[in-house]
Amino acid sequence: MEEFDRLLFDVFARGCPSRKALEDVTGRWGILAMVALRDGTLRFNALRRRVDGVSEKMLAQTLHALERDGFVRRDAQPVIPPRVDYSLTEPGRRLADKLIELIELTESLMPGVLDAQNAYDTAKAAS
Amino acid sequence: MEEFDRLLFDVFARGCPSRKALEDVTGRWGILAMVALRDGTLRFNALRRRVDGVSEKMLAQTLHALERDGFVRRDAQPVIPPRVDYSLTEPGRRLADKLIELIELTESLMPGVLDAQNAYDTAKAAS
Repeated sequence: MEEFDRLLFDVFARGCPSRKALEDVTGRWGILAMVALRDGTLRFNALRRRVDGVSEKMLAQTLHALERDGFVRRDAQPVIPPRVDYSLTEPGRRLADKLIELIELTESLMPGVLDAQNAYDTAKAAS
Repeated sequence: MEEFDRLLFDVFARGCPSRKALEDVTGRWGILAMVALRDGTLRFNALRRRVDGVSEKMLAQTLHALERDGFVRRDAQPVIPPRVDYSLTEPGRRLADKLIELIELTESLMPGVLDAQNAYDTAKAAS
């Protein structure tokens, strides 16, 4: 079934809805929000502190897109003062696990990346 | 050693260079370019055809960033007419493999994503 579904969707095709969904989870803030929520439910402001540098507006937009895709669940608690909790759905958890693998791999490659950047900049400056 | 390196880099910290590297490989065009090159060396125009919808300028910018990070190798062939080949480095290949897993997972989740989007839009329209 997964094999069949995969044939219907192709992120390389410009109009395919899978490209938009992929961008939602791999976007600058989307990826960090998904991974932050992997540790458990968070309120908006706690999430904003975790995703260092994100504006309130960008985080709200990011969460709306992820909620619409069914990756993030938004629970408005019936309490005073109002409180909104965000958590991952089951598909969201599966994606977040894969994103964590990607982040850990990227972080582990960073010493080589910094060397490559220095070599690149030195070569550019000399040319 | 990988464990040690990982502690030095944190994509959640706004100034960490790992955040920029992660953005280079997960950016709108970066992810598609990396995965397209997983199948082998490609010339610029072939890569551009594969990454449906990318402009020449955006693809060039994307490839420069990935080359600087040491994920993509750029080989200017000494032939007439000039020819430039792009391929993945070893770290680039490792990242591309992880990106392919992420894409395949996203594509496999798409039937549920479309259902969630429809439910979200219907609820919004009714409210």
